[in-house]
Amino acid sequence: MRRTALAFALSLLVALPLQAQQASHASVTRVDDASMTRAAQLRDAALKDDTGWKVVESLTTEVGPRVAGSEADARAVAWAKAKFKQLGYDKVWTEPVTFPKWERRSEHGEVLGTHAQKLVLTALGGSAGGTVEGEVMRFPDLAALQAAPDGSLAGKIAFVDYQMQPFRDGHDYRNGGGIRGGGPSVAIHKGAIGFLMRSAGTETSRLPHTGNTRYERGLTPIPAAALSTIDAAQLARLVALGPTRVKLALDCGFDGEYTSQNVIGEITGSKHPKEVVLIGGHLDSWDHGTGAIDDGAGIAITMATGALLKPLKPARTIRVVAFANEEQGLYGGRAYADKHAGDVVNHVIAAESDFGAGHIYGFDSSARDAQPEAIQQFMQVLAPLGIEWKPNEGDPESDIGAMAQRGMAWAWLGHDGTHYFDLHHNADDTLDKIDPKDLAQNVAAYAVFTYLAAQAQGGFGSEAKALEAGK
Amino acid sequence: MRRTALAFALSLLVALPLQAQQASHASVTRVDDASMTRAAQLRDAALKDDTGWKVVESLTTEVGPRVAGSEADARAVAWAKAKFKQLGYDKVWTEPVTFPKWERRSEHGEVLGTHAQKLVLTALGGSAGGTVEGEVMRFPDLAALQAAPDGSLAGKIAFVDYQMQPFRDGHDYRNGGGIRGGGPSVAIHKGAIGFLMRSAGTETSRLPHTGNTRYERGLTPIPAAALSTIDAAQLARLVALGPTRVKLALDCGFDGEYTSQNVIGEITGSKHPKEVVLIGGHLDSWDHGTGAIDDGAGIAITMATGALLKPLKPARTIRVVAFANEEQGLYGGRAYADKHAGDVVNHVIAAESDFGAGHIYGFDSSARDAQPEAIQQFMQVLAPLGIEWKPNEGDPESDIGAMAQRGMAWAWLGHDGTHYFDLHHNADDTLDKIDPKDLAQNVAAYAVFTYLAAQAQGGFGSEAKALEAGK
Repeated sequence: MRRTALAFALSLLVALPLQAQQASHASVTRVDDASMTRAAQLRDAALKDDTGWKVVESLTTEVGPRVAGSEADARAVAWAKAKFKQLGYDKVWTEPVTFPKWERRSEHGEVLGTHAQKLVLTALGGSAGGTVEGEVMRFPDLAALQAAPDGSLAGKIAFVDYQMQPFRDGHDYRNGGGIRGGGPSVAIHKGAIGFLMRSAGTETSRLPHTGNTRYERGLTPIPAAALSTIDAAQLARLVALGPTRVKLALDCGFDGEYTSQNVIGEITGSKHPKEVVLIGGHLDSWDHGTGAIDDGAGIAITMATGALLKPLKPARTIRVVAFANEEQGLYGGRAYADKHAGDVVNHVIAAESDFGAGHIYGFDSSARDAQPEAIQQFMQVLAPLGIEWKPNEGDPESDIGAMAQRGMAWAWLGHDGTHYFDLHHNADDTLDKIDPKDLAQNVAAYAVFTYLAAQAQGGFGSEAKALEAGK
Repeated sequence: MRRTALAFALSLLVALPLQAQQASHASVTRVDDASMTRAAQLRDAALKDDTGWKVVESLTTEVGPRVAGSEADARAVAWAKAKFKQLGYDKVWTEPVTFPKWERRSEHGEVLGTHAQKLVLTALGGSAGGTVEGEVMRFPDLAALQAAPDGSLAGKIAFVDYQMQPFRDGHDYRNGGGIRGGGPSVAIHKGAIGFLMRSAGTETSRLPHTGNTRYERGLTPIPAAALSTIDAAQLARLVALGPTRVKLALDCGFDGEYTSQNVIGEITGSKHPKEVVLIGGHLDSWDHGTGAIDDGAGIAITMATGALLKPLKPARTIRVVAFANEEQGLYGGRAYADKHAGDVVNHVIAAESDFGAGHIYGFDSSARDAQPEAIQQFMQVLAPLGIEWKPNEGDPESDIGAMAQRGMAWAWLGHDGTHYFDLHHNADDTLDKIDPKDLAQNVAAYAVFTYLAAQAQGGFGSEAKALEAGK
């Protein structure tokens, strides 16, 4: 999902005033009237089209869960190639993406002693395996764990019991995702032998949320897992009754390398075939659900967009990328950026859909200051979809972050994520959670944006930027 | 849960006209005015009392899941004895209940071949273990499976894909529970090597519902499991795409006998200590949830009722029974009936709460025809709780069925079960699903009924009946 690229986004926001100054000397980009009319027709047709639904139904049913590096990874790649061809894309190819392969084999948690009972939990992605037993020390949030003296958790299991709250823009994932990513390392510094967290989820359920974690270099990893929100509440009640010992047994870990593929489909531009409007989602998912909202929806929205645009013979090339292994560290996006680093200027603008299939409510772009007229034209066709201009609320989502950091212009079509973290990375991320009407609105929004970006005379500010040292 | 006793209930309904005729010669039972006034005060006090909540919180947190015959069974028995004493009951004792011990060790399901993926399922209670692989044959309901020619499923896995619908009285459990109980045997008759069903649940979730099944005598048992409703829908989509092979691997089965206990607490009657008003719930649960609505609620409602009645010094004895092993075949209720078969007449009337903690909306009793005046008095105090008189809608719930069949009068306080089968026998049956206000209403209703039954001058028709042959 998105916002793993928060660091990218922040660096871009800092860079914006300069970009705006530069852009003031650039030419004005605009869309011709005929294209504006066709974009409106495209929008209305897309609302009645079920291509997106058929794509996400096919992916989640026929491939199902598709963890990077698993047997299903290869089947997902084959599926994406076949689906691009079936949808009439002009070119379909793959680009390799290599990463360490992490496997979940088994996982088990239980309360020991007089209140013995199982706990429903799941290993965090990237967690070390191992079996530990110890008293649980509960902390209401990451700051409380950080405030514990070093060594004070020697022989104990740290438990960060933070309940994420739902918001349209999902901003509390900063806390939930922050605990998941950084909590285990903090726990190690305090001497803990294991790490538990309340799932980074906004619902009340027995389904734990997985998701990636990373250990600071030089630390000896400890087993790290997320409890379902209900099991976390149960453990909190038990801890309140008195000292509570827990056994955590995870069989998981890294096992060599795997090479997957970014799968790319293109509708070749009729006038400017080398100039690319890039859209996409990520093909991999976590293992508990079937990856419907994360990110089958993004794959479906963008694959359907290209298919709907083809008959209009867009002036620029539409490139749809099904990125490999976003979940375990943005590998697909980084491999894409490494390969296409020399071609930033021809990536006219890009957008990724990786925040579910909720109604798209907002639009933003890195071109907001440099090309206000074009933005206004985009908004003119997007507004009837219930989409508002939300300057400075967007960022380049997940896999396009690495190219955006290199100077590629980006757009943001913001999904309503109020319920996204009810389902994110847990077993409930399944087809039935997608509302076909919302999905059609998502496709309509992407179709409008992509078509107008392809037809626009002039660019949106993409220019090669030197990367800052250490990034 | 209830309605496993449907056969009992039906036999009683058939017997009622005779019972009514007999009762027409009996004396009229009524409650004195002072007791009526105290019952109304008790009702209003109970609505503000949280004893029931504290009991169910304690049971579900400190014991957690408590499958009959498991290590937690003994802890639950110890908990119940201690809790009765803590609540001030006058007498606390146990009565042994012996049954075959069934164990769930591991369970696994997966689609094989080009659409390989795991399926979330759980073994039905009483299922045979074993690993089978075969093509899935889907049937929309049990009738369709029954209509298949004998032998037509040779080497195949039967899949009954019936979606239960929610109703206030939960009556579609006849279908869902019927498939679970009888489906495996029908599948064996057709030649199947395995049995799958869509969970007998009314929700859309990834949490499969377990529950007991039984094989007809003389059949060789096959592994039998329930898919989560979402996994059933996924499997149905895959079957629609073409022949679909599934592997079902269950490690479970019977392992000797176990002796648990009915735990009984009494508030001794101040005037008629030998005359008993019996209320109760069942102490055991299934293993996935913590048995909050099934049947921690019933334990809590009836334990709290006795505690609330004690200061009123009821004329008759209040006996609260925490029945052992209801889930795997009404063992506790049957053991109680066997032990107390000679004492039916002193069981003045009984009620069991085994349908969750939803608002109680209806009242019925086997005494409806014989003692209309007393029923009217009950209703006078119950009505302000939003409870309506629902003649012929009730039955003696689960564990009291065996005594009712022997002639014990019964009452029914009907919970709203619209959402009961969202949670029933799955991992979502946890404390957070109980609304403390509804639970207090439940306690108030039971307190009113129990107190009035204890104070009434005259009985409700309990008389020893010869059991019909073969029952």
